[in-house]
Amino acid sequence: MINFASDNASGAHARVLEALTRANGGCARAYGDDACTAAADAAFARLFGDDIAVFYVINGTGANVLGLKSLVRSYHAVICSEMGHINVDEPGAPEAAIGCKLLTVASANGKITPEQVLPLLAAQGVVHHSQPKVISITQATEFGEAYTPDEVRALAELAHANGMYLHMDGARLANAVAYLGCDVNAVTRDAGVDVLSFGGTKNGMLFGEAVVFFNASAYSDIHEAFPYLRKQNLQLLSKMRFVSCQFETMLEDGFWLQSAAHANAMADRLARGLAAIDGVSVVNRVEANEIFAAMPPAMIEALQEQFYFYVWDAVRHEVRLVCSFDTTEAEVDALVAAARQLA
Amino acid sequence: MINFASDNASGAHARVLEALTRANGGCARAYGDDACTAAADAAFARLFGDDIAVFYVINGTGANVLGLKSLVRSYHAVICSEMGHINVDEPGAPEAAIGCKLLTVASANGKITPEQVLPLLAAQGVVHHSQPKVISITQATEFGEAYTPDEVRALAELAHANGMYLHMDGARLANAVAYLGCDVNAVTRDAGVDVLSFGGTKNGMLFGEAVVFFNASAYSDIHEAFPYLRKQNLQLLSKMRFVSCQFETMLEDGFWLQSAAHANAMADRLARGLAAIDGVSVVNRVEANEIFAAMPPAMIEALQEQFYFYVWDAVRHEVRLVCSFDTTEAEVDALVAAARQLA
Amino acid sequence: MINFASDNASGAHARVLEALTRANGGCARAYGDDACTAAADAAFARLFGDDIAVFYVINGTGANVLGLKSLVRSYHAVICSEMGHINVDEPGAPEAAIGCKLLTVASANGKITPEQVLPLLAAQGVVHHSQPKVISITQATEFGEAYTPDEVRALAELAHANGMYLHMDGARLANAVAYLGCDVNAVTRDAGVDVLSFGGTKNGMLFGEAVVFFNASAYSDIHEAFPYLRKQNLQLLSKMRFVSCQFETMLEDGFWLQSAAHANAMADRLARGLAAIDGVSVVNRVEANEIFAAMPPAMIEALQEQFYFYVWDAVRHEVRLVCSFDTTEAEVDALVAAARQLA
Amino acid sequence: MINFASDNASGAHARVLEALTRANGGCARAYGDDACTAAADAAFARLFGDDIAVFYVINGTGANVLGLKSLVRSYHAVICSEMGHINVDEPGAPEAAIGCKLLTVASANGKITPEQVLPLLAAQGVVHHSQPKVISITQATEFGEAYTPDEVRALAELAHANGMYLHMDGARLANAVAYLGCDVNAVTRDAGVDVLSFGGTKNGMLFGEAVVFFNASAYSDIHEAFPYLRKQNLQLLSKMRFVSCQFETMLEDGFWLQSAAHANAMADRLARGLAAIDGVSVVNRVEANEIFAAMPPAMIEALQEQFYFYVWDAVRHEVRLVCSFDTTEAEVDALVAAARQLA
Repeated sequence: MINFASDNASGAHARVLEALTRANGGCARAYGDDACTAAADAAFARLFGDDIAVFYVINGTGANVLGLKSLVRSYHAVICSEMGHINVDEPGAPEAAIGCKLLTVASANGKITPEQVLPLLAAQGVVHHSQPKVISITQATEFGEAYTPDEVRALAELAHANGMYLHMDGARLANAVAYLGCDVNAVTRDAGVDVLSFGGTKNGMLFGEAVVFFNASAYSDIHEAFPYLRKQNLQLLSKMRFVSCQFETMLEDGFWLQSAAHANAMADRLARGLAAIDGVSVVNRVEANEIFAAMPPAMIEALQEQFYFYVWDAVRHEVRLVCSFDTTEAEVDALVAAARQLA
Repeated sequence: MINFASDNASGAHARVLEALTRANGGCARAYGDDACTAAADAAFARLFGDDIAVFYVINGTGANVLGLKSLVRSYHAVICSEMGHINVDEPGAPEAAIGCKLLTVASANGKITPEQVLPLLAAQGVVHHSQPKVISITQATEFGEAYTPDEVRALAELAHANGMYLHMDGARLANAVAYLGCDVNAVTRDAGVDVLSFGGTKNGMLFGEAVVFFNASAYSDIHEAFPYLRKQNLQLLSKMRFVSCQFETMLEDGFWLQSAAHANAMADRLARGLAAIDGVSVVNRVEANEIFAAMPPAMIEALQEQFYFYVWDAVRHEVRLVCSFDTTEAEVDALVAAARQLA
Repeated sequence: MINFASDNASGAHARVLEALTRANGGCARAYGDDACTAAADAAFARLFGDDIAVFYVINGTGANVLGLKSLVRSYHAVICSEMGHINVDEPGAPEAAIGCKLLTVASANGKITPEQVLPLLAAQGVVHHSQPKVISITQATEFGEAYTPDEVRALAELAHANGMYLHMDGARLANAVAYLGCDVNAVTRDAGVDVLSFGGTKNGMLFGEAVVFFNASAYSDIHEAFPYLRKQNLQLLSKMRFVSCQFETMLEDGFWLQSAAHANAMADRLARGLAAIDGVSVVNRVEANEIFAAMPPAMIEALQEQFYFYVWDAVRHEVRLVCSFDTTEAEVDALVAAARQLA
Repeated sequence: MINFASDNASGAHARVLEALTRANGGCARAYGDDACTAAADAAFARLFGDDIAVFYVINGTGANVLGLKSLVRSYHAVICSEMGHINVDEPGAPEAAIGCKLLTVASANGKITPEQVLPLLAAQGVVHHSQPKVISITQATEFGEAYTPDEVRALAELAHANGMYLHMDGARLANAVAYLGCDVNAVTRDAGVDVLSFGGTKNGMLFGEAVVFFNASAYSDIHEAFPYLRKQNLQLLSKMRFVSCQFETMLEDGFWLQSAAHANAMADRLARGLAAIDGVSVVNRVEANEIFAAMPPAMIEALQEQFYFYVWDAVRHEVRLVCSFDTTEAEVDALVAAARQLA
């Protein structure tokens, strides 16, 4: 079976495994007081500049939950797209681990806009309602599209004007930045993002994500609170170097962006191939590594015998196809050829 | 610096890294529906027999919290030693993630007895008090001693006679079993343990623990509930094969016990060496891989320049020395020699 | 200022205060082991029949949270109307106190239908999603309409067919039953409701609600668990007789329904009066004690100088007017007259 | 049966019921925006001075949980006596509702000292341990003794010197102040207490407690956060006037202290009477309204046929006898006479 199901059905880059092997030499202080972690911290500082706080965690749900938990109390609310991973795919983790409510807005492509968020702010100051405190967006969205710097900035300005924060779930940030072709800061820090989940797993790491706080000195207690929250919420790895060494190698020479650019290129090739087939239509703007395509039910069924992927919308016969760092042109072409033959 | 600080300041076995490299070939379904996980499941079934449920998690706190959360509701209490890792070293994770109370009993060596537990059961049935529902013990204890099968059985019988469960934190189960020389079942399943945290990290894995439910069919909903609890509590790795492949290789040919036996042997060698030195006394029964030794403050200070270890009790000048799978005879002898010279 | 703001801006029935005074004679065992509570239990048993479990709590949020918490674990979801009090007006209490997610469906009048619920059940069995476990409806709805027995039964059948429960928030159950003219069981127990919040505060009590479990013996542990959950979640009154004595008197001779019927009659009178005024339109079906009416902004502003009520929808210029057990015909007529004059 | 079981087995003062009846006249804005609440606020300001924040809640567990929740996050710890009500008698409410850990110190009489607290502060700054943030004491203690102003101040100074708060559970504050004969501020605000649970229920109210923050402007967000926390944690009464009117009448003319002084006087009379009986010994210092007395098992058994009270320590044959605002000299003398006859 050829994988188009998810970027987390892929393994890891060979160079990530090599980094792991190097990090394994001898002992190291546990819980992050080690050379690998210091090197990863330095790499993030080179990427994002001064006054940031970076914390390594284990998985994407952990990154989102802890980033958000640092910003809110239980009576606050987090505003997000109804399609948001934090709303749909973390079976109640924000509610259970933070105790707060998610307020969702409808979204066709995973993006939300200030116009959608604004009416929800009417709840501010009313004791009967959860208090909006964070806007959380996913970059690239769950529908494979990328927020532009302007779109991010508009949400940040709305948030900050109302005493709120902007959180970005960047599980696929690399894909978005590779698509946008801008500096990563342009669409994060400089656009007003306060806290970022910087993805690793879906970009070719074995596991591991980073939570990045921008302008960290503006938070009175993040540096104090986060380590305890991380440990208490089960996201502290004792042999921490095995997370941080992966980030160190990913951030070297822009490798994290090259990895994502490859996945994007494969998605683009796949989208073009599919779009040319009668009866198949690509329904999202393919800006990252995900394609959503409508195709005849019989074609879906036949393709699933050879390829591993998910039906996204059973009613509209739409499938989701995800390309990864290790997707090859041959694999893409095989899928296109198979689809063409079935058309 | 030579590491005697903790078994989690060590790295991982070379063969664990090799397993990881092997597991990395190609794609695999995410979240545990993969061949490595099936193989690890089979290995656990060979070890413990039928009717078990095994779930792979990421770290020790996760294993304990999820094992316990499967057994209790928020108004229940977990009885443990005041020295218990769940009480002392998981900054409130059981309280925050489960919402339940820990009831502690005093302990000099980390063990607790039925006689100590019994008075706490008077709270059962009284609406004003948290309801004791689980006895949780650590094997080997945080003081480096091993419960015998009889000691475990006595606690299990008390628990079961009172509608309670027996939970074992087995972060260092391998060391205890290697010391006892018995079959692992003799001190777990056959002794009445209901749920076991089966340690990996401290025994030479990169990370990863397993939660094992014995007689799983007796629980109406463990198989249903645990996967959701694991995901919601941030302990599900998407690329699950990278946890399970490590267990697969550890369980092969009893390698997990060989690894622990080596650490134990080093601890024994170290204890004998230190005990022979004037002014040094080993204060615990060295049954696993940890030594607790009282020594003159000046000796502690001087040793810490060369060796990495913790002062356990600053008032009584007791240090904790932990041996690991990769501790060498030369390292042990170097510490003993240094201490002898300082005496 | 004349109150049309809410039924909880009213005080209490004189006969409720008399009951309180009677209950105050001498000492009584605390926490519910008293004669008043036994009498209230008996009154509920006469109302609802055998095999029920009744627990007295303090407020409506408490009744809903505890009823739901008895039915779900943190990874479950509760399906409700987006207008539901549990979703909108309890600032995250279900999320914080239970840890579970609410899944909402759109609703114009506060009612939800099986057709709306069905698509959400696709999440059942998928580890990435919160698991639907309860359908929660409000009777009468937040928009002042009453579910018919058939409407309730249809939801109960869907719930039960999918391993779920039906919960009813009956803060205004009395108003719904008074409108429907049926036996209370026809629209609760006999229609398949599993757990009911039986309202007191909004029907002329000082405070106090009851949580009623139907077919209580079907729950293995409600009788065991609820008292602990109630105490732990801050809803146990030590001088319990002061809650239960109020229910005892309310249930006597159908007084609870007479009280609600009066409020309904006042709402009906008010609705008829307003509907006859040019430029005013009543936008809900006035089936309980709430009227939602659109009127010119200038009229709203002028009325608010004499009458205490809320603007429900500022964009559509809709106000909410609530009648209570102590609303008088003169008060109703005064509002209608004032509106007519302003028209 | 004559009540010596608890002050919450008593009813309420007649004048409290009269206040309730007065408050019941007509409508009032719900949730605290009413004249009774404003009057109670003013009464508290007269008692405690400027810059306080007072919030009315429903029961003692609610007052403690919300006071503490305002001060801590989940990774913090609250230090208290092992006998503390928050530790023993609120089945895990602090753990469940706050998510934090309680760290207990042994106590013979319910008091704790700076010397006992100090060693626990070694955990500060260590990521593996819950972080001590509050010292919580009970005034009068669960063993019926009163902290002196100096004892309170010593704990406050230790707390403040270590970045911590001092919380006082004053469910029986009135009894302590009546005993000490000092101004209430001397043993609360002026002694360094930060947050106080001001008891009502045990001092002759139907229900209701107040949470008082001293120097409220020092907290950045108490005024913002508490109302949401109160509502979310099920402690907001919609018809709030029925709580606040009780406090208004209790605080009038020092009535709250007169009520407690009577209970204390009855306890003193009872203690003197019992102490004079052969075979009976009073084991606590009777400084409030509770007596702990050792007596022969046969005497206990015989007394329980006529009098309602609890055995406190079954091993040492100690009973707890509580006097209340409505305990009469005749009742006290009847118990003493019965005991003397049984001796």
